[in-house]
Amino acid sequence: MNDYTFLSPTRLIVGKEAEKETGKWIKEFGGTCVLVHHDSGFIKQNGFVDKMINMLKEDGLKVVELGGVVSNPHLSKVYEGIELCRKEGVDFLLAIGGGSVIDSTKAIAMGLPYAGDVWDFFIEEDGIPHDVPKKSTPLGVILTIAATGSECSNSCVITKADENLKRFCDDDINRAKFAIENPELTMTLPSFQTACGIIDIMSHSMERYFTPEKENDILTDYLCEAIFHTCMDCARILMKEPDNYEARASIMVASSLSHNGLTGMGRTGDWASHFIEHELSGEFQTVTHGAGLAVVTPAWMRYVYKDNMDKFVKWATRVMGVSMDYTNPEYTVLEAIDRLEDFFKHLNVPTKLAECPGVGNIDDETLYRMARRVRVVHDDGTVGWVKRLTTEDIVNIFKLAM
Amino acid sequence: MNDYTFLSPTRLIVGKEAEKETGKWIKEFGGTCVLVHHDSGFIKQNGFVDKMINMLKEDGLKVVELGGVVSNPHLSKVYEGIELCRKEGVDFLLAIGGGSVIDSTKAIAMGLPYAGDVWDFFIEEDGIPHDVPKKSTPLGVILTIAATGSECSNSCVITKADENLKRFCDDDINRAKFAIENPELTMTLPSFQTACGIIDIMSHSMERYFTPEKENDILTDYLCEAIFHTCMDCARILMKEPDNYEARASIMVASSLSHNGLTGMGRTGDWASHFIEHELSGEFQTVTHGAGLAVVTPAWMRYVYKDNMDKFVKWATRVMGVSMDYTNPEYTVLEAIDRLEDFFKHLNVPTKLAECPGVGNIDDETLYRMARRVRVVHDDGTVGWVKRLTTEDIVNIFKLAM
Repeated sequence: MNDYTFLSPTRLIVGKEAEKETGKWIKEFGGTCVLVHHDSGFIKQNGFVDKMINMLKEDGLKVVELGGVVSNPHLSKVYEGIELCRKEGVDFLLAIGGGSVIDSTKAIAMGLPYAGDVWDFFIEEDGIPHDVPKKSTPLGVILTIAATGSECSNSCVITKADENLKRFCDDDINRAKFAIENPELTMTLPSFQTACGIIDIMSHSMERYFTPEKENDILTDYLCEAIFHTCMDCARILMKEPDNYEARASIMVASSLSHNGLTGMGRTGDWASHFIEHELSGEFQTVTHGAGLAVVTPAWMRYVYKDNMDKFVKWATRVMGVSMDYTNPEYTVLEAIDRLEDFFKHLNVPTKLAECPGVGNIDDETLYRMARRVRVVHDDGTVGWVKRLTTEDIVNIFKLAM
Repeated sequence: MNDYTFLSPTRLIVGKEAEKETGKWIKEFGGTCVLVHHDSGFIKQNGFVDKMINMLKEDGLKVVELGGVVSNPHLSKVYEGIELCRKEGVDFLLAIGGGSVIDSTKAIAMGLPYAGDVWDFFIEEDGIPHDVPKKSTPLGVILTIAATGSECSNSCVITKADENLKRFCDDDINRAKFAIENPELTMTLPSFQTACGIIDIMSHSMERYFTPEKENDILTDYLCEAIFHTCMDCARILMKEPDNYEARASIMVASSLSHNGLTGMGRTGDWASHFIEHELSGEFQTVTHGAGLAVVTPAWMRYVYKDNMDKFVKWATRVMGVSMDYTNPEYTVLEAIDRLEDFFKHLNVPTKLAECPGVGNIDDETLYRMARRVRVVHDDGTVGWVKRLTTEDIVNIFKLAM
């Protein structure tokens, strides 16, 4: 077990009509003038955003609205938000939405009290960031989709669209004060989005479960497994009953716990599947992140499992319910990976590259271009920890996913 | 699932020599003059407290020391602490120890900025507390035994010894700013104390797992099970290898997660076993809390399981590894309870009243006296939620434990 610090100070407020408490909690954190930040999709069109704005006004709060957040939220929108907040005297930020909206809100929150350019927190030279945030503006979240876990994470990802730069700023200062989680808000999500969200949640803990360490702490493995079982049980329920309240609630809170650090305590996460997928959905905008993970993860597993057999056997037997084959432990693992793939298929997401919309057969040139773009983690130019993957390895993984 | 709020803002700092960071974190929370509060047992005698005091002084902090905390910490010591802190200008409290020391520290922290009598927060009339804490003093913990989970809980239990009153003040204001958890500090604990701690940790999640609700949220059940599996795996390891670092670390963090609210999200905990045990160890001071739980819990289970068969079957099959007997599901549950009792026996703790030191055969008068003293939860004078237990029920449970 590695030494570690765990902090997850975000208050979860979970339940039917939980959003009615929003004004109370904003005032608890000193808010008087609130930026309501959202995308302009379903929750705006169905009137939920307007309902919330009216509710906050009735609670005596001044409200400023900013919509139009896109997937892979843009730095330009962050600048727009900062300017608007300064003009209006905003002292609290409320994100209504999922990961993109929350990340955009986090960036505005950091930029608001900062004299320089907020992008300084996202870019680095020789591994050293241009600047580190020392202050932020309090922010809260009304979650409308269970997926990224940004509502409880310390992470913020922003894209500078004109240079096609997607950059991270991971800092505890980014943590939301509260996350309002009303499971009913997620019941109208299309089944494909529900499925992709669940896969993303599972993946956040799989990246932390499969580690290079031979001795992991016992507790963290069981916590990861709690997330896996929850995701698989709830997915099966929600494919049949999209409005099952218990399953919606469990998935929503699982999204928060799967990425707040709890399932990574004491270990080095791998994250290769995530970084490889980012380039896949970066190259093919038609690929949703969760669907891309369903393609990349089983291929990655087949490529690397021999490098930590003990952990893959544990997963196969304890999570995927495969009987241990003591003569051929590898068969146990391979059967488990097949079952994972079958599970993804059952969710009606693609599990092969060729099945992804807009992808088809990819030529080697494209494979290498994507592989070369994958975020480098180690000094030797490789990525991942279970197995340190070279560009050639990544191409092989893509080929296994064909 | 019930609506709920979950908050656990305490920063966990886990690892070898984690205590070296104490001064840094105290200063992070504005501390300049620190009360170091502890019992006068092993950690004082082996020089750890003095080592910490010197370390904090080297970090430029003023240090005031207060020892002598006893089990079931006394209000008189709390008063002494408040007076001392006022005299010395203390602005941060550091608890070094386990549950008793931490609770004593929490009470001092609440009393310090309060003009009235801190006991006002603990006593109530007609269910209304005399006063509610609005402010507290920042406090941190260096944990030396994994058991009560007070390092992350909102709970504080203090005893007014002259009137033999044990009272609670549960409030989020009690949450520690940080908990330093160095697993090596717990390696020298006697095996009996290690075992009792583990049983207490398991029990904090069992009280939350076994609920009256028929539909529990899926995630919380799996999180409880993660705690159960961790406790059982680690107990088996530690009985053989008391200095197994991974197991010590997992148990230590499990103590924090088992009582910070995580395993109770969305449900009503039962707590009858705890309340019954409090009267057992109250009557017989020779009974340790964890050992008392090992006696009471299996008897309670045998008495109430029919009131939530589904949950007991889930526990039997998923946690205790019993094969489902579809013809006689009750046999599945009874086998699991036997296994739990065997597990406790394997830890060398008593599982029957007669085996408890200083108890022997109890007469009916004593049984009824204890049963009548058990904390009442419902208006009809009963306790517990899976089954609402009358005095007669509690006596029956004691008799099952004989």
